[in-house]
Amino acid sequence: MKKLITLSCAAAIVSISAFASQALIEKARSAGLKPISYKTIKELDTKENPLTPAKIKLGQMLYFEPRLSKSGLISCNTCHNLGLGGADGVPVAIGHKWTANPHHLNSPTVYNAVLANAQFWDGRSPHLEDQAKGPMVAPPEMAIDPKIAEERLKSIPTYVELFKKAFPQEKEPITFDNIAKAIGAFERTLITPSRFDAFLRGKTNALTKEEKEGLALFIDKGCTSCHTGQALGGTMQPFPAVKPYPYAHVGDFKGDKDGRVKVPTLRNITETAPYFHNGAIWTLAEAIKTMGSTQLGIEISDAEAAKISTFLGSLTGKKPAIIYPILPASTLSTPKPDAN
Amino acid sequence: MKKLITLSCAAAIVSISAFASQALIEKARSAGLKPISYKTIKELDTKENPLTPAKIKLGQMLYFEPRLSKSGLISCNTCHNLGLGGADGVPVAIGHKWTANPHHLNSPTVYNAVLANAQFWDGRSPHLEDQAKGPMVAPPEMAIDPKIAEERLKSIPTYVELFKKAFPQEKEPITFDNIAKAIGAFERTLITPSRFDAFLRGKTNALTKEEKEGLALFIDKGCTSCHTGQALGGTMQPFPAVKPYPYAHVGDFKGDKDGRVKVPTLRNITETAPYFHNGAIWTLAEAIKTMGSTQLGIEISDAEAAKISTFLGSLTGKKPAIIYPILPASTLSTPKPDAN
Repeated sequence: MKKLITLSCAAAIVSISAFASQALIEKARSAGLKPISYKTIKELDTKENPLTPAKIKLGQMLYFEPRLSKSGLISCNTCHNLGLGGADGVPVAIGHKWTANPHHLNSPTVYNAVLANAQFWDGRSPHLEDQAKGPMVAPPEMAIDPKIAEERLKSIPTYVELFKKAFPQEKEPITFDNIAKAIGAFERTLITPSRFDAFLRGKTNALTKEEKEGLALFIDKGCTSCHTGQALGGTMQPFPAVKPYPYAHVGDFKGDKDGRVKVPTLRNITETAPYFHNGAIWTLAEAIKTMGSTQLGIEISDAEAAKISTFLGSLTGKKPAIIYPILPASTLSTPKPDAN
Repeated sequence: MKKLITLSCAAAIVSISAFASQALIEKARSAGLKPISYKTIKELDTKENPLTPAKIKLGQMLYFEPRLSKSGLISCNTCHNLGLGGADGVPVAIGHKWTANPHHLNSPTVYNAVLANAQFWDGRSPHLEDQAKGPMVAPPEMAIDPKIAEERLKSIPTYVELFKKAFPQEKEPITFDNIAKAIGAFERTLITPSRFDAFLRGKTNALTKEEKEGLALFIDKGCTSCHTGQALGGTMQPFPAVKPYPYAHVGDFKGDKDGRVKVPTLRNITETAPYFHNGAIWTLAEAIKTMGSTQLGIEISDAEAAKISTFLGSLTGKKPAIIYPILPASTLSTPKPDAN
């Protein structure tokens, strides 16, 4: 009998907890938080760049292809390292000839970048297929002349074949635009669902008690006013909105023409320090407190920042398994690398 | 009846061809050429660094780990890119702060490096576990202080765990020596058997007629006096032996104290241009002719060089499939990257 009562009590506690969790899920969804849709890739499969296995495979090779840089040494993966949360772990991007980004901009993660409304910190690019071209040609990044990029790939028979398969309707498929399209297609597959998505879908025990507390606080403090949607970020917002950003002196980035800055995704945020557009903050707690101050005009205590950090840890997602691509050899006619 | 005669003739031709191939196999073996032994890894499993799955897995992560460089940007894979024939495809290695190797040395391939008698162009290192330490600390390469490398890994709980598993007998397993041992263990697995190995083992149709002609020429010209064994290279030899090397002015490398230089492996040679210790020659045909002149004192014609090139193509082997490792995140106590 005693055992039966104990069991009933336990069941009651579980229901109360499940009930509270259900309420938290509704609260989170009302605040605009959304689980990653497994249809995401397909939904984003625009007419401009239909995704096919052939294109994704090619894009994966090109993502790791250092011959798309002038020097032959830098690939997309150098700054957006799939092993390092999709970023590089350094404050400011370093590119061709060891040049730091002239605006002291930090490399954002490529994981879940497809979920953002705009690309680059100033949101000047509408999608990944457009974005991918920027770093390839930027002198402090990969520094390549698009014509050289095309010539290098055209000189390698395996690439000629793979571009034909990826762009079967086109007579001259190796173009700089198609290079970026293939890379964009691959990048669209880089989504990382986590326990948080399972929770939002109703699996009430997918988050720990502490993570749920952190999530509630995250919503109550107003973080979801910017960090929302599937990406928990990805829109353009005024920055700083209320008080000055304490590290504004690092670099000269001022956002877009309206002073807005792209809100970074919080997915895998524990893996992508240092933080902010200029990589000036190394700890998540300081980042959270700074956001409270500059964006919301509130003080977030150390204890509260710790709780929110704990929640953010639940956004670390499963990365797609990538076989490191074996790239086809250069030929006698391949334009040579140039480190200068 | 006519058909029967035709078939008999065909069979006779096949036997003659098989007979000739068998003779070529014997000739090749007599010249010291050996197929990659599938026991290679085990044979090389020394008491100093017994290979275990845990150690190989850790070594694979460390091979791709840019935090083993001062800047946090350069890994073993930067210069020994597993996607680019295990090398970097540029004449001279470029490292920390975009510094070119001061002796203008070219990055050798890591594939099949385990099969060499000695490591580095001057052969100063006896094995991979010793070699791996060199580029990590060299100022123009990864430029890291061994203590910082250890501190970085010690600050990351997943690495603490993985080192315990890889070095279960040791109390303090995260040491610079063990970092190199794990990397060495992984590198020992990077062997790439090709059709040539099948041929040497008796599969007479594993090479084409042209490749067999090239192989016969390769032996007849005396290339096997240096390019022999499983690696078709990997020993220390006088260089230049007969006539001056025409690009001796590129860099200041003079070999070891006796003027000897390590013979590069010819496996995957079609994937690892440019050639020679100073990366001065881009085409295989020119490399072959130069070797004839400087090392053997003979003139190899264009037609002969083309035939030998064709044979060398059969040494392009199957690369192990590597899942790109997801590396554990840094923590608050991880020593910061330093690009300066």
